This record gives sequence, structure tokens and C-alpha cells, in this order.
Amino acid sequence: MPNPTAAMLVIGDEILSGRTRDSNTHFLAGQLAERGIDLCEVRVVSDVHDRIVAAVNALRAGHDHVFTSGGIGPTHDDITADAIAAAFGVALGIRDDARAILAAHYQRTGLELNTARLRMARVPDGAVLIENPVSAAPGFSIGNVHVMAGVPSVFQAMVAGLLPTLSAGKPLLSQTLRIERGEGEIAGPLGALAAEYPQLSIGSYPYVRDGAFGANVVIRGSDAAALDAAMVRLSDLFPEATA
Amino acid sequence: MPNPTAAMLVIGDEILSGRTRDSNTHFLAGQLAERGIDLCEVRVVSDVHDRIVAAVNALRAGHDHVFTSGGIGPTHDDITADAIAAAFGVALGIRDDARAILAAHYQRTGLELNTARLRMARVPDGAVLIENPVSAAPGFSIGNVHVMAGVPSVFQAMVAGLLPTLSAGKPLLSQTLRIERGEGEIAGPLGALAAEYPQLSIGSYPYVRDGAFGANVVIRGSDAAALDAAMVRLSDLFPEATA
Repeated sequence: MPNPTAAMLVIGDEILSGRTRDSNTHFLAGQLAERGIDLCEVRVVSDVHDRIVAAVNALRAGHDHVFTSGGIGPTHDDITADAIAAAFGVALGIRDDARAILAAHYQRTGLELNTARLRMARVPDGAVLIENPVSAAPGFSIGNVHVMAGVPSVFQAMVAGLLPTLSAGKPLLSQTLRIERGEGEIAGPLGALAAEYPQLSIGSYPYVRDGAFGANVVIRGSDAAALDAAMVRLSDLFPEATA
Repeated sequence: MPNPTAAMLVIGDEILSGRTRDSNTHFLAGQLAERGIDLCEVRVVSDVHDRIVAAVNALRAGHDHVFTSGGIGPTHDDITADAIAAAFGVALGIRDDARAILAAHYQRTGLELNTARLRMARVPDGAVLIENPVSAAPGFSIGNVHVMAGVPSVFQAMVAGLLPTLSAGKPLLSQTLRIERGEGEIAGPLGALAAEYPQLSIGSYPYVRDGAFGANVVIRGSDAAALDAAMVRLSDLFPEATA
């Protein structure tokens, strides 16, 4: 059975304006690889309602799971919940269980659960909450779309709670060999090896160190035996390579 | 006149598998903001021909410029040039001027211009070369799509050469104020301010430092006078804020 597929949607002007460097994609990619869910595409869109709706609908039609980050806080630029509800064509309202979570949190911290904070209890009809152990305000899953916060510590905590609830596939295994020769030297034999192992992905990532060209060759796949065999063949082809 | 719009397409399994953290998007985003070209969307796709073709065609139809990174080296997994030619429905062949650049480079470095390296002289019909001052192998522009290398030092050098040739817009200006209060406290007045200045984008980015909540409020736009006025209003609303 093939692995489940996934897409990530990062929502936020701050990434596209160059102010903030997204780190949630890299974190999620590593977690999904371990769990055997194949991340096939990432999109970053700005805080524009129609762009979010269009991206959500395109990605959820083509993948088993869509993970979003960003735009679920209390301020005017947090429009993700509205856009997700619009994408699914369902209503968005303050939900009692989400409100109770916020009420308990703000009572503990001595802050007021005001109108702005109550925005974070708005959940599309039919969604399931995702726990937020860092700052209480929950994420939610609706259909195959999982909506999480953009703040990295909160995003990571939500992913940690969510992933064990999703069907796992075969973990993506990966082995790397460093070859201190230019890619142009190794490309021929490497291409032949890749053709021998169509079930594996063989990538070559060049680098320059102290003026010398080299490449990290990474073999990836979920078939451990094929991966081991391909690594042996790779080492035979390039005896000077180092792990 | 509105600013030109742009999308970025990152091509590479190594990003989606969690092995490599993309840095080209963040670099390009900053450069485009300075030049007044609005980056509206980013996509990351794997090294799969049909996915690259589909993404290129979707993005070039919706934006004034598309910038791609990755997949133009000499190895079997470098399939970007093929995919771009397919997306435009044109032929891909080794071009004399690109071959001459490679021949001169490998003569200087004492390496052979072999079959694998010659792959890097393959350019879609009708394209214009983008100079690569780092490692010679050129990128290219075809229509509104600019195809560049994934290695960050090469990508950056190509962008530096390319951007001055593109029509500029009004630079995206940005000012930030740090407010040491939770987003829930500032959301109301901030939303009212955003409604007053529809030509600006006002973003709120929460943080937790030493257990205390705060937010960086960033006002962006190309209208310098409106930006200054909005910042004055923001400082009046939150006198304790710091730049």
C-alpha cells in the first residue's frame, strides 16, 4: 500500500515579505518522513482570503492530508479560520468546548477573555480540536485539513499531538555518502544506478568546500533492503567516498 | 501603477524530505521587497516532471514573474530544464553560447567537458541565459520564468545579475514596533487602525520571552507618508512600545 500523501500550506505575509524565515516546513517535513507520510508539495500564500481558500481547495483535493500554519490568533490579520470555513462551505462560530479551554487558560493567567481572544474559539462546523499545550488556543482538523498556529513552539506542540492520530506509512529511510569529486564526474554512473533502483530516489547535492567541488549523494526510500543494496553498489562505484 | 507580482518555485526532494532547509526563498523575498516586486506565492515541489510542469504553468499564468531554484545541474535528478521546455511546449537542445561558456570554464579548471556536464548547456528554445559568476553553468529566462540553480551561493549570484534587468516597482517599506503585551490586549485597537489604512498591511507577530507575552507589530506598504502616519498613530495607541 502506498504511503499517505501530504501538502503543507504556510499562511503569512511575514514570510513573503522576507521579514521572517519559515521554519515550520522544515520541522514538519522531518516529522512526516519519520512517520511515512510523503510530503509532496508546500505552498506559501499571503494573508488574502481568496488566495487561502484557493490553495486549501487545490491541496486538499490532491493529497491525503493538508497541514496549515499561521493566521489563527486574535488579531485582524488572523483570517485562516474564516478562509477554511469558506473553503469547506460551512459556518464558523464560537464553540463551547473551545471557549471553555480559553476561559480556563485566561482565568489561570489572570487575563480577560475579551472579544479579540474569543475569536480564537471560532471553529468551522464539523471540525475536531487540536490541543495547544503551549498557549491554550486550539487548532482544528476538518476533513483532511489540519489547521495549526504559526508560532514555531506552538506549531511543533500541535504536530506532536496530531501526528500519532494519523495513519502511518513506511518511514522514509535515507543514507548519505560524501564524494569529493565534482558532480560532472559522478553523474554518469550515478544515473545508471538510479535507473537500476526505480523504487528509490537518488539525489546529488553539490557543494564547494575550500575551493574543492564535492557532492553529497543521498539515497531515499522505504525499502530498507533495496536501500542497503544500492548503498553497497554506490560505495563500490566510488571507493573513496565517506559516510 | 501596481507593483509587478511574482511567485517562487523551489524544486527539490531534499527540501520535502526534511534533509535540507530551503534558504533561497527567504533571500529572494528580501531582494524582491527592496525592488518593489510583490512576492505573492511560493511553491515547493519534488523532482517529478509532471509536478514541475503543472506548477510552472499555474504560476506563470498568475504572476508577472516566476523564479525557480534547483534541478539544473549535471546529474540524472536535474530535470528542471526538461520540465520548463515541456511547460512552454518548446524544444530543448544544447546551445552554442551555453556550450562555449562551459568549455571555457572547464578548460580553465582542467576538467573535461563530458556528456554529463554538457547537459548544463541544454536550454529551451527562445530562452535568454542568466550569468553564473560562481560555477559558470548558466541559468535562463524564458517568457516570464527565470530558472536558477539551487545551491544558495549560485542562486544569489544569479539573482544579483537578473534583478536589475527587471522592471522595478515601489519598494516595500516596513516599520516595526515591539509591544510587550499579549496580542489579545492589542487586537482591538490594532484592527481599527488597520481598517483606517487599507493601503497598508499591518501584521502582528506574537512571541514569548522569559514567560512574558509580547507582539511585534509590523506595518508594510509602499506609501511612505501613510506608513509614517500609521506608525505615529500606533505609537499613540501604545505609548509603552519600543522600536
